[in-house]
Amino acid sequence: MPRNFADRLLDKIDEMKNPSVVGLDPRIQDIPQSVIQNAIKSVCDASHKELKYLDLEDKFRATARAFFDFNVGILDNTCEIAGICKPQMAFYEQYGHYGVGAFEETAKYAKSKGFITIGDVKRNDIKDTAQAYADGLLGVVELVDGSSHSSLDLDAITINGYLGSDGVKPFIDVSKKHGKGFFLLAKTSNTSSGELQDLLLDKIHGGRKVYEQMALKANLWGEELVGDRGYSSAGVVVGATYPTDAVSVRSKAERAIILVPGYGSQGGMGKDTIPNFNRDGYGAIVNNSRNLTFAYKLKNFRAPPNKYGEAAKKSAEAMKLDILGAMKDAGIIPEALK
Amino acid sequence: MPRNFADRLLDKIDEMKNPSVVGLDPRIQDIPQSVIQNAIKSVCDASHKELKYLDLEDKFRATARAFFDFNVGILDNTCEIAGICKPQMAFYEQYGHYGVGAFEETAKYAKSKGFITIGDVKRNDIKDTAQAYADGLLGVVELVDGSSHSSLDLDAITINGYLGSDGVKPFIDVSKKHGKGFFLLAKTSNTSSGELQDLLLDKIHGGRKVYEQMALKANLWGEELVGDRGYSSAGVVVGATYPTDAVSVRSKAERAIILVPGYGSQGGMGKDTIPNFNRDGYGAIVNNSRNLTFAYKLKNFRAPPNKYGEAAKKSAEAMKLDILGAMKDAGIIPEALK
Repeated sequence: MPRNFADRLLDKIDEMKNPSVVGLDPRIQDIPQSVIQNAIKSVCDASHKELKYLDLEDKFRATARAFFDFNVGILDNTCEIAGICKPQMAFYEQYGHYGVGAFEETAKYAKSKGFITIGDVKRNDIKDTAQAYADGLLGVVELVDGSSHSSLDLDAITINGYLGSDGVKPFIDVSKKHGKGFFLLAKTSNTSSGELQDLLLDKIHGGRKVYEQMALKANLWGEELVGDRGYSSAGVVVGATYPTDAVSVRSKAERAIILVPGYGSQGGMGKDTIPNFNRDGYGAIVNNSRNLTFAYKLKNFRAPPNKYGEAAKKSAEAMKLDILGAMKDAGIIPEALK
Repeated sequence: MPRNFADRLLDKIDEMKNPSVVGLDPRIQDIPQSVIQNAIKSVCDASHKELKYLDLEDKFRATARAFFDFNVGILDNTCEIAGICKPQMAFYEQYGHYGVGAFEETAKYAKSKGFITIGDVKRNDIKDTAQAYADGLLGVVELVDGSSHSSLDLDAITINGYLGSDGVKPFIDVSKKHGKGFFLLAKTSNTSSGELQDLLLDKIHGGRKVYEQMALKANLWGEELVGDRGYSSAGVVVGATYPTDAVSVRSKAERAIILVPGYGSQGGMGKDTIPNFNRDGYGAIVNNSRNLTFAYKLKNFRAPPNKYGEAAKKSAEAMKLDILGAMKDAGIIPEALK
């Protein structure tokens, strides 16, 4: 049996003394020109073409290449500080199969540097179709000759539970079999998340809010995925922008690990993430994407574009200190993280 | 200004006298051996390798090739009967960038045969990230040299509205600018869809169910996408397996086109789809995936595997007759479809 995902995740947090997640959301307009020019050059070299003869496919290829090269710079510079990364599929998939290729290469490279990989894909579908997503992203797929092999082989993904349990069960089954995990959207970090997620249910459902109902579901679905360290490989997502809601989710899904996006560019700070942790100092991981990867553009970490990796490193270090400091202030820092 | 998606869709329904959708959900274990062997051969030829020397990447490539070749057989045989197709991304994406490549080629080929393409992707994310999905799937993306170009260039996609309006707005904006559309999940076709979607909201929210609230949202979001023919490019999804719920959605989102999955293998019949149509005989499109693409395996359309295309054609013809017959019985068949 492969080792339980939640156990692996907690071990990694202990190893790095850090519950931070490096978010990898590349945007072509924010990637340094040096990276872009190198990517274009490598496509020119591979296709034996001069720059002016590059066709549309070459440009897609070069964009994907720039994404991967940029991510390597981030991962190389942060791998001694943080142990978890989260590439956001949307930014890759928008470039079709070229972009998805860069996503795959990024995940593979991250693994080689010791990172646990969480694919932020928010996938959801009905039974058999959800099974295809689960097999491809976390498990194994059947190939043309009848053999089976892992495909994207991520450690975990985010999922959306709007379709109910038959759409979630494949992710539970595959997680159990392959030592993988998932994070179910409960309360997302965006401004309009409350439009549906905060709606109150009727008295039969305890007058709960929709996101609280989702947290209860996650807790139930996660029962069979609890590892030796007491946490489940079925986690939930709660935005750092909603610390008050985190209190409610935390109480309804005690064994769930909460993936907390919204730190940094969306306004969340270390102290805002505290309600997501249990009193044992575990149970939450905190993601920072833009303010980490593109830290070279920020006032606090400003650097020349070709030093974007070093700026990211400084941002990752500052984030670690901020969160551990907030945990200390709250009196919940675990022994292993001291 | 590009032509409104809803207008294009209704024109296509009139042209084909058919509101059916050809669902393209390839599964390697259901694809005829003749297609598989041809795909393997073409990969061997391209790589100058004998079968026994094919490596893992070659096998992924051959699987993707088999999917595309199979779809060509379906599209060639159904393009004179139906005018809309819906590839389900999960079945392709599970094979990573190879599979996504086959998805792209399928959509491109479908367009060349006159089909309107709906990507069943159920994407969802927060503001900027949803924008990346919208740009990539429906709009244009920025490339490495600063130029912009369409990427997957689908006509429409399915989306999940759990994250609220800032996660939907990018799809509205891109649809308006590029003459595209989307279908918001309201009540899905699966057995457990009611677990969240049927929950009753409190009295402040009119004691509505969650899926009814979603339908109201879709109606609101769709206002700025209403075309000359009175329908909006913001549609909704309601499973054929829940005809009673369709009545409620229909009344709450009058101008929305309802994408109705669940016909065929999930048990839905022509008569079950009727509540999704308006009295003018428009406002719904009905999808059939497995019972159409893999009709050669069914009792009613059984055929030798290499005649899978002809079996699909017969299934598509039977489906058209079933739905038009049910519309006639209900007295709602439009003049153009007679």
